[in-house]
Amino acid sequence: MNVDGRPTRTIWVAGDAVEIIDQTVLPHAFATRRLETVEDAARAIAGMQVRGAPLIGATAAYGLWLAMRADASDQALASASERLRATRPTAVNLRWALETMTAALAPLTPRERAAAALARASMIADEDVAMNRAIGGHALALFKELAGRRPRGTPLNVLTHCNAGWLATVDWGTALAGIYAAHDAGLPLHVWVDETRPRNQGAALTAWELGQHGVPHTVIVDNAGGHLMQAGRVDVVIVGTDRTTATGDVVNKIGTYLKALAAHDCGVPFYVAAPSPSIDWTLASGREIPIEERSAVEVTTISGRAVSGELASVQVTPTGSAAANPGFDLTPARLVTGIITERGVAKATREGLAALHPELAERAGRAGTRA
Amino acid sequence: MNVDGRPTRTIWVAGDAVEIIDQTVLPHAFATRRLETVEDAARAIAGMQVRGAPLIGATAAYGLWLAMRADASDQALASASERLRATRPTAVNLRWALETMTAALAPLTPRERAAAALARASMIADEDVAMNRAIGGHALALFKELAGRRPRGTPLNVLTHCNAGWLATVDWGTALAGIYAAHDAGLPLHVWVDETRPRNQGAALTAWELGQHGVPHTVIVDNAGGHLMQAGRVDVVIVGTDRTTATGDVVNKIGTYLKALAAHDCGVPFYVAAPSPSIDWTLASGREIPIEERSAVEVTTISGRAVSGELASVQVTPTGSAAANPGFDLTPARLVTGIITERGVAKATREGLAALHPELAERAGRAGTRA
Repeated sequence: MNVDGRPTRTIWVAGDAVEIIDQTVLPHAFATRRLETVEDAARAIAGMQVRGAPLIGATAAYGLWLAMRADASDQALASASERLRATRPTAVNLRWALETMTAALAPLTPRERAAAALARASMIADEDVAMNRAIGGHALALFKELAGRRPRGTPLNVLTHCNAGWLATVDWGTALAGIYAAHDAGLPLHVWVDETRPRNQGAALTAWELGQHGVPHTVIVDNAGGHLMQAGRVDVVIVGTDRTTATGDVVNKIGTYLKALAAHDCGVPFYVAAPSPSIDWTLASGREIPIEERSAVEVTTISGRAVSGELASVQVTPTGSAAANPGFDLTPARLVTGIITERGVAKATREGLAALHPELAERAGRAGTRA
Repeated sequence: MNVDGRPTRTIWVAGDAVEIIDQTVLPHAFATRRLETVEDAARAIAGMQVRGAPLIGATAAYGLWLAMRADASDQALASASERLRATRPTAVNLRWALETMTAALAPLTPRERAAAALARASMIADEDVAMNRAIGGHALALFKELAGRRPRGTPLNVLTHCNAGWLATVDWGTALAGIYAAHDAGLPLHVWVDETRPRNQGAALTAWELGQHGVPHTVIVDNAGGHLMQAGRVDVVIVGTDRTTATGDVVNKIGTYLKALAAHDCGVPFYVAAPSPSIDWTLASGREIPIEERSAVEVTTISGRAVSGELASVQVTPTGSAAANPGFDLTPARLVTGIITERGVAKATREGLAALHPELAERAGRAGTRA
């Protein structure tokens, strides 16, 4: 999508390296970083310079290319894959991208691998863009239907949590793809942006990318969404997912479950945008998904722009108080109105998801679903 | 409760003035402020140097004393009361304290009013302490019962939102009174402290006062509580209230509703500590309670201690993004396990509350409940 009016992706090849937008300094600065080695890629993922399940997958794929350029042996392929896989335990796209890359590279001779890795990683990136554009089209149809129930000329109010926008993907975003599609189609809408503590991806990233693209939006604290739903000020909630099970259980950024509960209690539709690589066909319950426990420092300190204009952190807790920081939570399928995949909108059930993706569901079934 | 081992209240008389703890600089600094005029008191409430429904009530009562010292005319009593009432629209204790004071002062001659105001305000403060101690005793009994269901020797895990501790009252707190009582009685417990954006009263105040008193606690972001309840890591939720209706609907700090939904979904008991002055006997539905909309700056910037040790603010949103800041939300009575008042634990129903407070319910009934 646009940055200062110029179409931009979150990751791209630049000569012998990969370049990314450093998302840790947004929205206060726009900076790019050059990744030259698999270690650079692993650090960019672990340090959350890139984040968002689809973008993590694409970065890992390019990371394997960088690894193969340095050493294309079987051992290097295995250890690079292991290094990248260890960076973030929750996102299934990471595992999917590494498995897709390894399946393509392992049968080749080492001398063929670097070129093949670049081609396959670029394909993963381009497929991500295409899937997100398709998700946007399906979400747009839903938004049009919901907007038809509103007084004419009033904007559709959409609430989103965290950042499932183009910054979380290669382009377009998952949850925000439909918002961009609707905005570009002239459908009046307004987005409530959950700030999404502890890392404030909503306040920092979603607000920034919506602002860059000219979409009306209002930032709220994570506590506020329930009240807005009670007051009839939210027409639809749409979020992304780090991993969704074959049965429609959704693991996403911590706090998503609370918004799903409020939406359910207030009769507000709750949709999850899930490109098929974020669906884990091997799982029958979200309770099987590991929840990443992140550093307490993300809770005790908050970063932003100081009055001086510099980036700075402030400590919000008393020195000596402990903090805990689970990164994700589980939204049970029963709270999900629908899952928007690149092939259409599915019910959050095994049957609903399998009907849209019969070949993926069947392959996982043959491999033996853990249930 | 204790500050550096010394018993301290949040508000006290010092000669011709009132002194308070300035809660806007906690937990990073401990400072007191002197209030010499009703305008000082109004500003301390509006600027949240004092906050918490019971403490707001006590401060307003002392504020009328300061007003009467300067001018004890009928007109001064009315205008001082109006000035104080306008500071915070949601807390019913504020209205209650002003009505209680006015009922005591209006029949007197102006020359009698200053002394009577001091006596009545001090009584309101002392009654607050007594009510909170009683609430603590009832909560302790509940905690003992819940602890009995846990494996022996493991701490009872209590989750609380915002600050309903001694800093929100004159002493003891409402929601935290039971926690202090349990801790002092040797019942092992651990408190999950919601940071409570936007003003971080949990991270700043609840964590600080629990730490000062030696109660084990862990700060979490507001998004995390649902996950902890899903994981069985919360035995009971207890919160305060800014205003509770005669039917048990609870208005409390923004985000409380989301925790009540999660507790209900996960089978975790959800209690509200409500001294009787925070019960509005004239209301049959929480939807009638005005929800204060506060400054957007509380959302867009966060204060804390910079690396230099100074207090500082950082901006977390992009410049140009709008923010909204509703201060409270409504937890419907159906989500509340029980309301702990100074007279015992009531069901969150009109019958339950009226059974404990027949004379208050009856008086409101005679005045004509708006229903």
